Amino acid sequence: MTDKSRKLRIGAFLQATGHHVSAWLHPDAQADAGMNLQHYKDIVQTAERGKFDLVFVADSPGGYADFKDEASFRQNAKAAHFEPVTLWSALSQVTQNIGFVATSTTTYEDPYTTARKFASLDWISGGRAGWNVVTTGADVSANFSRTEHLEHSKRYERAEEYIDVVKGLWDSYEDDAFVRDRDVGVYLDTDKFHLLNHAGSNFQVRGPLNIGRPPQGYPVIVQAGASEPGRELAARTAEVIFTANLVIEDAQEFYGDVKSRLAKYGRRREDLLVMPGIFPVLGGTEAEAEANYEQLQSLVHPEVAWGILRRHYQGADLSGYSLDDIAPPLPTETNGSKSRLKLVTDLVARERPTLRQLYRQVSTARGHLTSVGTPEQIADIIQRWFENGAADGFNIMPPILPTGITDFVDQVVPILQRRGIFREEYEGTTLRQNLGLRRPENRFAGHVPDQANRA
Amino acid sequence: MTDKSRKLRIGAFLQATGHHVSAWLHPDAQADAGMNLQHYKDIVQTAERGKFDLVFVADSPGGYADFKDEASFRQNAKAAHFEPVTLWSALSQVTQNIGFVATSTTTYEDPYTTARKFASLDWISGGRAGWNVVTTGADVSANFSRTEHLEHSKRYERAEEYIDVVKGLWDSYEDDAFVRDRDVGVYLDTDKFHLLNHAGSNFQVRGPLNIGRPPQGYPVIVQAGASEPGRELAARTAEVIFTANLVIEDAQEFYGDVKSRLAKYGRRREDLLVMPGIFPVLGGTEAEAEANYEQLQSLVHPEVAWGILRRHYQGADLSGYSLDDIAPPLPTETNGSKSRLKLVTDLVARERPTLRQLYRQVSTARGHLTSVGTPEQIADIIQRWFENGAADGFNIMPPILPTGITDFVDQVVPILQRRGIFREEYEGTTLRQNLGLRRPENRFAGHVPDQANRA
Repeated sequence: MTDKSRKLRIGAFLQATGHHVSAWLHPDAQADAGMNLQHYKDIVQTAERGKFDLVFVADSPGGYADFKDEASFRQNAKAAHFEPVTLWSALSQVTQNIGFVATSTTTYEDPYTTARKFASLDWISGGRAGWNVVTTGADVSANFSRTEHLEHSKRYERAEEYIDVVKGLWDSYEDDAFVRDRDVGVYLDTDKFHLLNHAGSNFQVRGPLNIGRPPQGYPVIVQAGASEPGRELAARTAEVIFTANLVIEDAQEFYGDVKSRLAKYGRRREDLLVMPGIFPVLGGTEAEAEANYEQLQSLVHPEVAWGILRRHYQGADLSGYSLDDIAPPLPTETNGSKSRLKLVTDLVARERPTLRQLYRQVSTARGHLTSVGTPEQIADIIQRWFENGAADGFNIMPPILPTGITDFVDQVVPILQRRGIFREEYEGTTLRQNLGLRRPENRFAGHVPDQANRA
Repeated sequence: MTDKSRKLRIGAFLQATGHHVSAWLHPDAQADAGMNLQHYKDIVQTAERGKFDLVFVADSPGGYADFKDEASFRQNAKAAHFEPVTLWSALSQVTQNIGFVATSTTTYEDPYTTARKFASLDWISGGRAGWNVVTTGADVSANFSRTEHLEHSKRYERAEEYIDVVKGLWDSYEDDAFVRDRDVGVYLDTDKFHLLNHAGSNFQVRGPLNIGRPPQGYPVIVQAGASEPGRELAARTAEVIFTANLVIEDAQEFYGDVKSRLAKYGRRREDLLVMPGIFPVLGGTEAEAEANYEQLQSLVHPEVAWGILRRHYQGADLSGYSLDDIAPPLPTETNGSKSRLKLVTDLVARERPTLRQLYRQVSTARGHLTSVGTPEQIADIIQRWFENGAADGFNIMPPILPTGITDFVDQVVPILQRRGIFREEYEGTTLRQNLGLRRPENRFAGHVPDQANRA
């Protein structure tokens, strides 16, 4: 079943000090990572040396302010960090090939603003931008002069229209609209200019966007939601899905399901790449890897552990429990991330862990696959998922940074290359080319606008 | 009256192909400048070689869509360009000292979003960010799902509260809030964390901002509005004003007026720098400079000239006029930029120009000072305004780019340096240090937050 020409995709999912909840306490971590540009520069250049397709950061337009958990608060190394698009814009200047995926919300920003910043990043980076579309699970309405956080299904409804508007704005000018012909005095071919004139239930947006069509046509559209509306939105619009699965069977179900939804939107299976997250804890031997894992887990302060658990139980009183008690069932409803709740609920039902086992499981990668072993063993898992309908690639979640990315690049990437499933050189100069994704047509191409459609 | 220690400030006000309305038609102009990163890189590095304090771009979150003026539309080289903050973030990586001032609107974005992007730019650039606060004169409401453009005085009311909120968000963490002490397990000193909890008539914003206090405390606050509410807002909050004056007497009136308003806000005269724009047309001799000016003006297509005039007359029917007729009085009201209307109205009243003279005047620098002469003559004007209470410095508006900036740096800067009024080397590494502006205190410094004030 192996298609020799099919190549694994690899992204680096970066969390300033690393993904482990207590990464900053590890002696190898860069403690001031959140606002240390040199740190990010080093990491991104290392990822490019490893021929990664892309680097990626998550984002929410809000800050942690849960004062009930004083210990979590005091130890929160994720409170302060660069804004993703400005960060990637700067780092595009010290790299040549790697793609830059930034997270941006459809719930707390206007589509015009989002369309602009990603188009600008795509021009600045020479076609290496990607937009991770999120609806924002956490309620940050209090930062945006609003009285409530939109309900889950409304967020997805809004997101669908939002993406349409953003793409429409990117199409304001056709690729060859700017002729800049001094001899005839024509800068812009006005037949290749198009007003969007969008009038929908959430947005009314005239256009034009004040920047030319992005080099990639559209920056690559990425999504992470795995709930029912999330899957449908992804099937309709996403080109990459960052997903979280703990076992290959669940990953296969997800992979098969979203790929099967593509046809009804006139899309091919290869138009959407599925990339689960993986949190690799490496060691020269199995025992060394296990010791590294235990060292990481030993960094978790007991109060931080209880804070993690309380957040998963949505603030429920756990004072009657000890860490060695079997984890009680989780709440069944949330207005936050539904797919992440389901993943942890399934875990509790399947494995009947103690509360200690539960917090250890989520303290590493918050529900993504934690994989402890030698470089060969990590490569085996990646290859198994890749070749058995569970993944088109992986989003590597380094436990601590910068060493977590250096180790993966130096130890795991060469194995994947030797096995012939990962590139030795970049195929192209844009993210889209490297991911093997088609460059989208302009929706207006060939339509000569009439006057009525303009003003 | 000359204070020897007082140094002239110089900014480069960049317009992609140059400020002249038909700059793109000039053989020296970079026609694809709007989305040509190398072009901006060259310009900014040249400005830094010339020891400029800062580079600056104007901005509006909308695109030109005036189809009634087909010629202007076809020749509009300003239709498509980079978004300013992403552009400056990238260029901060190829420069060391020069400051980056980006325009961002208070009318079409949330303060949380603005606070974040400028804080991030300040971190990324090592303290070289400035925010040119605008209320957006042009009606772009149709791009933002709104039915109307806020009225002028409401825009200024909103701007005042907006700036307060942004500064408050920048103060979420004190400068030394992040202790990152592994031995005691404290990342954040929670006593140095402050929720804003702003509840005003336009905005309700809790905070915290999810980034540390910017290296400069606050990025430098810049403004351009010169209407009555604009002057008052500037006196209260601005640290630099980019203004437009055609004659030294008006500039002196403006300079004296805004400086005299500072005391009532507890500010010193040196806390606010006034920098008018100047559009320098250089030549080795006066005759050469005049010829260069005429060459520029010859580029203006007659239909483009009429388009300029119609916009100044707010769409009035001018078909009964010829270019050699005396310009009729301008409209007295606008919901756009009031100060720019006044400037042109005054010009028409003072000089009684023909319509040809009027469009020629505004086609260069849209109401800023146009100065045609030898490098010595340009330096004379700059020095006269600087030493006679009309300016703390100038915003250079190159007629065409890139040559307009290279010529100024090579020909005028050395004269200003020889005269001892402009720096030979940068004084510091941050924009604030180079401009000689104080670093602002954190409004919360020393206040230990109580629990009640937190959540």
